[in-house]
Amino acid sequence: MKPVRVSKRGETSPASPIRKLVPLAVAAEEAGRKVHKLNIGQPDLSTPGPMWDAILKEPPRVIAYSPSDGIPELRRSMAGYYERNEIPIRADQIIITTGASEALCFAVGSITDPGDEILIADPLYANYIGFSHLLGVKVVPVPTRPEDGYHLPPREVWESKLSSKTRGIVVCNPGNPTGTVYRPDEVEMILDIAKDWGLFVLADEVYREFCFDGETHRSFMHYPESTDRIILVDSISKRFSACGARIGSVATTNADVYKACLHFAQARLSPPTLGQLMAVDAFGFEDAYYKDLAAEYQVRRDAVMDELSRMEGVLCEVPKGAFYAMAKLPVEDADDFASWLLTDFEFEGETTFVAPGNGFYATPGAGRQEVRIAYVCEADVMRRAMKVLGEGLRAYQAR
Amino acid sequence: MKPVRVSKRGETSPASPIRKLVPLAVAAEEAGRKVHKLNIGQPDLSTPGPMWDAILKEPPRVIAYSPSDGIPELRRSMAGYYERNEIPIRADQIIITTGASEALCFAVGSITDPGDEILIADPLYANYIGFSHLLGVKVVPVPTRPEDGYHLPPREVWESKLSSKTRGIVVCNPGNPTGTVYRPDEVEMILDIAKDWGLFVLADEVYREFCFDGETHRSFMHYPESTDRIILVDSISKRFSACGARIGSVATTNADVYKACLHFAQARLSPPTLGQLMAVDAFGFEDAYYKDLAAEYQVRRDAVMDELSRMEGVLCEVPKGAFYAMAKLPVEDADDFASWLLTDFEFEGETTFVAPGNGFYATPGAGRQEVRIAYVCEADVMRRAMKVLGEGLRAYQAR
Repeated sequence: MKPVRVSKRGETSPASPIRKLVPLAVAAEEAGRKVHKLNIGQPDLSTPGPMWDAILKEPPRVIAYSPSDGIPELRRSMAGYYERNEIPIRADQIIITTGASEALCFAVGSITDPGDEILIADPLYANYIGFSHLLGVKVVPVPTRPEDGYHLPPREVWESKLSSKTRGIVVCNPGNPTGTVYRPDEVEMILDIAKDWGLFVLADEVYREFCFDGETHRSFMHYPESTDRIILVDSISKRFSACGARIGSVATTNADVYKACLHFAQARLSPPTLGQLMAVDAFGFEDAYYKDLAAEYQVRRDAVMDELSRMEGVLCEVPKGAFYAMAKLPVEDADDFASWLLTDFEFEGETTFVAPGNGFYATPGAGRQEVRIAYVCEADVMRRAMKVLGEGLRAYQAR
Repeated sequence: MKPVRVSKRGETSPASPIRKLVPLAVAAEEAGRKVHKLNIGQPDLSTPGPMWDAILKEPPRVIAYSPSDGIPELRRSMAGYYERNEIPIRADQIIITTGASEALCFAVGSITDPGDEILIADPLYANYIGFSHLLGVKVVPVPTRPEDGYHLPPREVWESKLSSKTRGIVVCNPGNPTGTVYRPDEVEMILDIAKDWGLFVLADEVYREFCFDGETHRSFMHYPESTDRIILVDSISKRFSACGARIGSVATTNADVYKACLHFAQARLSPPTLGQLMAVDAFGFEDAYYKDLAAEYQVRRDAVMDELSRMEGVLCEVPKGAFYAMAKLPVEDADDFASWLLTDFEFEGETTFVAPGNGFYATPGAGRQEVRIAYVCEADVMRRAMKVLGEGLRAYQAR
């Protein structure tokens, strides 16, 4: 009898920094503590009523497969939403996916072969590493600095990371985990690099409307002459507070990329039907909806920044978008600190769950003192969670 | 400016034989024809009422992410279902996935590196080729014959297909597209080969209860000494008529495989929440539910077989399970015939949509005269669809 072994791919698959401490949080809750879950981008806002109406008023008799590219009504509704955002994408250039995760998987799959490389500004959304790993693709980090507000480094830094295997650049704008909103000149620099070196740009714009302090969002799709090298990724998770519906999209004007993504989409049959039904009307929401949404998150951000600014030794640039902040803490190992908060600490019966920052860096050793804070709860709750975090910091240092 | 090109992976991604003719069917419907859709395993049975109650009676306020491995209640409910099926899997050995498709993707990903190979009896469920392709893995077909009822060839045929890159064997039992229910000696032969050559067995048992004529299902998990090399894939799609819920699972007693799959699962955050809520009670359904289900599909199968037996030149072994039949037609190119049925034919305003058989073969050139018929509609409708198919055959031959 010969034993079996998982593959190198399986053995080296990375754990999610957002999820890996979840068992500790579950244990803390089971022990009776209240846990403020700021580790994950799970908004506390109600999923809008009109979305529920779509399935509750007249539930389908059979939950059937949808077309592999998604139900036509949803694609049409999204195309209208894109038009209002001055993004030139037609309904037949959109493929509905199971969350932005699957969209990214299809997009990376369509432009890479195993062994190829993609460039991503570091720190980065940790799951980019996860599904690149699954596809046999290497993530090459391009470092950014907290003191620059995690804005992009100059062109020569990007070019120093290119190799003959580089196939694309992934840009999350506004950024997760940094909250950075890229300026037009940064978007244009990336496009210029892509044009000069024959690269695709994967534009992850799921936080498009989450811009604060009067910032406006510049999409890669606002450059009509370049759209054939852009693959646009979107999601209903954050903007409609429906993370568990698992509905995203991949869109492109590039017919070859579209075809590859469609074939990948056919192989998994279809995205979830109920979530699609719920999303149709949501993409018709008016501007006021998004204005209120951004205003609400700006209040939350301000609460977090205010509390962080009172904590000694904590550094945090004011994020201009999304709903995350990377904070540098006065600890040597933020991973240990985050675990400790869950296993050993409580303040008046409460603790705070943050995501260790090192998991958001593809650069080995980077981010050891950082944590990602998702300001997904209302301002008062965020203030309380920050207070608990501050007390935790003091207690941790005093051990 | 340097142009962009999709990768070899993207360029050579295979279209689904089940889905690729869908645009022709849509056009036929738009032209006013009724299309009997037997191309896809989409049952016409209502999704059971108790499943709807789970979300309609008290909808959650927020559609939130679930744990990456699925909601605990569902995993516990599934573990109970497995126990009743004498399958030794605990709740903490189950990862809920977005359909069996994702389960297979994780399973293959955990045991292969790019360039590795997996063996599958040919004809096969076409999407195995799709996600293996996405993962850079080669499907090596092991031929079976219609005249053997697509039962497995002897051990030496399997061994002749092994290479140093072979990592596992995928077995769909009961089989899609063949409807074959494997005998215990076949299951044991596969296990023996796996043991002797250090291979995993991916057991796709989504049609477990769909066995006819008194056949009983033998699971690979019924061999307790071998479970560490088995990866069990399941789904709610067919047994609960909820294909669009996109809920499946991957389960294993092998801790390394479990960990790899969990990390892949974390990278895509979570499976759909609503489908999970619906599935909890469903896995508590009693035996009578499954007996009725199998009886209903047996009636449908009998109707199809009866009609096919009246068509001159059509060969079709009586399938003993699942809800598919591979039929060999008296045409040279069944792909062309299936397209023609949609574009050029109608009988009293109706036509029948079947899936070309060649797409279910990984062996080049095989299956050119075959089609797959999914008997997913009630018996009267199936009889009518077969009558229309028969008329189509006559007309096609008379052109």
